[in-house]
Amino acid sequence: MSLFKRSATELVGTFWLVLGGCGSAVLAAAFPDVGIGLLGVSLAFGLTVLTMAFAIGHISGCHLNPAVSLGLVVGGRFPAKELPAYIIAQVIGAVIAAALLYFIASGKPGFELAGGLASNGFGEHSPGGYSMAAGFVCELVMTAMFILIILGATDNRAPAGLAPIAIGLALTLIHLISIPVTNTSVNPARSTGPALIVGGWAIQQLWMFWVAPLLGAVVGGVLYRWLGKEQL
Amino acid sequence: MSLFKRSATELVGTFWLVLGGCGSAVLAAAFPDVGIGLLGVSLAFGLTVLTMAFAIGHISGCHLNPAVSLGLVVGGRFPAKELPAYIIAQVIGAVIAAALLYFIASGKPGFELAGGLASNGFGEHSPGGYSMAAGFVCELVMTAMFILIILGATDNRAPAGLAPIAIGLALTLIHLISIPVTNTSVNPARSTGPALIVGGWAIQQLWMFWVAPLLGAVVGGVLYRWLGKEQL
Amino acid sequence: MSLFKRSATELVGTFWLVLGGCGSAVLAAAFPDVGIGLLGVSLAFGLTVLTMAFAIGHISGCHLNPAVSLGLVVGGRFPAKELPAYIIAQVIGAVIAAALLYFIASGKPGFELAGGLASNGFGEHSPGGYSMAAGFVCELVMTAMFILIILGATDNRAPAGLAPIAIGLALTLIHLISIPVTNTSVNPARSTGPALIVGGWAIQQLWMFWVAPLLGAVVGGVLYRWLGKEQL
Amino acid sequence: MSLFKRSATELVGTFWLVLGGCGSAVLAAAFPDVGIGLLGVSLAFGLTVLTMAFAIGHISGCHLNPAVSLGLVVGGRFPAKELPAYIIAQVIGAVIAAALLYFIASGKPGFELAGGLASNGFGEHSPGGYSMAAGFVCELVMTAMFILIILGATDNRAPAGLAPIAIGLALTLIHLISIPVTNTSVNPARSTGPALIVGGWAIQQLWMFWVAPLLGAVVGGVLYRWLGKEQL
Repeated sequence: MSLFKRSATELVGTFWLVLGGCGSAVLAAAFPDVGIGLLGVSLAFGLTVLTMAFAIGHISGCHLNPAVSLGLVVGGRFPAKELPAYIIAQVIGAVIAAALLYFIASGKPGFELAGGLASNGFGEHSPGGYSMAAGFVCELVMTAMFILIILGATDNRAPAGLAPIAIGLALTLIHLISIPVTNTSVNPARSTGPALIVGGWAIQQLWMFWVAPLLGAVVGGVLYRWLGKEQL
Repeated sequence: MSLFKRSATELVGTFWLVLGGCGSAVLAAAFPDVGIGLLGVSLAFGLTVLTMAFAIGHISGCHLNPAVSLGLVVGGRFPAKELPAYIIAQVIGAVIAAALLYFIASGKPGFELAGGLASNGFGEHSPGGYSMAAGFVCELVMTAMFILIILGATDNRAPAGLAPIAIGLALTLIHLISIPVTNTSVNPARSTGPALIVGGWAIQQLWMFWVAPLLGAVVGGVLYRWLGKEQL
Repeated sequence: MSLFKRSATELVGTFWLVLGGCGSAVLAAAFPDVGIGLLGVSLAFGLTVLTMAFAIGHISGCHLNPAVSLGLVVGGRFPAKELPAYIIAQVIGAVIAAALLYFIASGKPGFELAGGLASNGFGEHSPGGYSMAAGFVCELVMTAMFILIILGATDNRAPAGLAPIAIGLALTLIHLISIPVTNTSVNPARSTGPALIVGGWAIQQLWMFWVAPLLGAVVGGVLYRWLGKEQL
Repeated sequence: MSLFKRSATELVGTFWLVLGGCGSAVLAAAFPDVGIGLLGVSLAFGLTVLTMAFAIGHISGCHLNPAVSLGLVVGGRFPAKELPAYIIAQVIGAVIAAALLYFIASGKPGFELAGGLASNGFGEHSPGGYSMAAGFVCELVMTAMFILIILGATDNRAPAGLAPIAIGLALTLIHLISIPVTNTSVNPARSTGPALIVGGWAIQQLWMFWVAPLLGAVVGGVLYRWLGKEQL
């Protein structure tokens, strides 16, 4: 499949990740009395990846995340020269999704963008008020473990065909742990989409959701290579 | 298998989708203190499809949804001439389920049909008060992505046998995002069953839950054909 | 494997179903502020079957339920002459689980058995106050669909090895719909265990949770044989 | 793979189990209004095992738990001489995770360690106030069934490749039942990590979360060997 078509597929998949994950957070998390809460949002983020991994994994590999693409490069599973095209496509998909989500969400009387579009943040913009240091470490460790799981579950020694379940539910798990800390990114594209629509603080804090996940991706890639290598 | 028997199977499957999905919403979503909420309803809708896809996928293909049948025609996976029989059977199954749900729900003292049977709606009949435009776009996009996931997960390049999990959980995800907007249809049969029992506004707004999902199905079918085709 | 050892395996599996399902309901459903609710209980019931189907399916077939054993006889998948041994073992396992659950639950100061052990009931003993007629129909239909799913998912035309997921999550779905109506049985053994410990009304209403599920099992078995048969 | 590298893998996996399970409990369970509750924590614990079993099962077997390692020895699936290395690695991983969790959690103004780090306890330190006897029996039975499920789902007669799902969701189920009783251990390493950070009562009660799970592991291992053996 051509790089252009694979990148277009990444755009569609990342669109789905942001629309589904951030959409469930904005539209349904705090619905009165019967809202889905952080548990529902965690499930939604994971299911965007699970469903897309089954749907487009055979086309583009279904990264949907610059940190995942980088981690796969470090793990020796993806060519570095294709990284720019994938990352650009992922960010474009995320921005389109955030714009569409804004359109739908603003169809409700009384909607205010100031409440954010499930943007990521730290300090006073952390959902639970967690510090920048806590947020940075959390994002780095979560991304590292995410990459380790991706590399392990797609290892040819792992059960064939089930990696979409492992990887999707890993993202659910990561959200179950860390939404209160940073609203959970582990994905620079997912952070960039809402930040560009919301502006202000969301853009000022955006650097962290590129730096920490990308660093974590390198750590996870190196760790798995060492653990999984047959020879000492 | 004969078209008659496959259509009868679609009837039973769609009966289950509406009884399970709308039933969980009507009977259990707002149960005092321990109700399952929108998260439980989302899970229920998805599990009706997941369970039926394993149970009857090998008989009828388990569409359970006119938009899915149409999307499969567009995607080149289902013959157009069988569309009428499938759609009629799906609607009949949905109506029977809505009637049975009404019988069970009215077995509780104080039940009022005016509360609806998990009917779909927009504007003042949207659970969260979302506008017609927001609802239309939401239904169209959700159905398009649903069809894309169905076509992708049943592609012969995707992991064999796991499509029921991908497709069922895609429907769960779609509900996690969009119940507040339209009560989530993406399925004209699912909308028609409760509307015929409830009448009034539910029938007046029913057009949208045929038009938007069917349009979305075409979009999803065309998009997947383009993304998934080996040659540019 | 001998009938004795297979029956012993059914005893252990049904013990797990009742301990896990009723245990989650009694111990965790209404825990203050963070209780698992009916959604958690629904998941727990389903996971008892999912986990046991993977663990002991290859030993005894993992019925864990007299209605399932009967439905499999009707569906032509289990010899009628082994039905008594299986059903006796299932009931014994359920009673042991209810007794153990009573021991654990009563280790909390202030526990009162009068609150029941997740016993099934109708009328004034229905969680939502549903009538006997609503409860009977609900149990019958839910069991029929459960058997249809079991026969379909274990059909040799269905994806191999995944039936435990389909069947376990079908039980979750059934609970998501119907706990408010009867506390959900679809399983005479599961109803008998707690009823024998609680006594009184739970035993007086126990007949319905044998009759309706067993009737439903016959309906489901006949329906699947008709739908799934290649020749008209 | 060398014992050293396999033990290092167990360390990483158990780190993830404790960070994910206890982390979700400490950071997200009681988040105001939208907290994940005990259901979310149960899911998180299970998903740590599910994700790691897919990621590292082919490297170390993914025990992540001294009771599991012992149960596999009893079941004839793991050499006793490797038990010490595995258990030491598991405990080290759990301690590192608890320390990291403490670092992140304390990044929120007003955090108090006195609230515990999801430590296990009984009596006045049981979440629901359950007695030592109830807690001991509960931990023993839950671990025994956990081991039985592990041995069954990894039996070569069970569906290949799906054991990670069965085993992960078994741990979810166990938490759905028993968090109120002891905060759920069934894993001495998971109990030891937070106890060493919290100190005091958590260490005084730690003995029970070694003795009961290890006893349960022996019971489960013996029971499965008897049930699953072809010859009477």
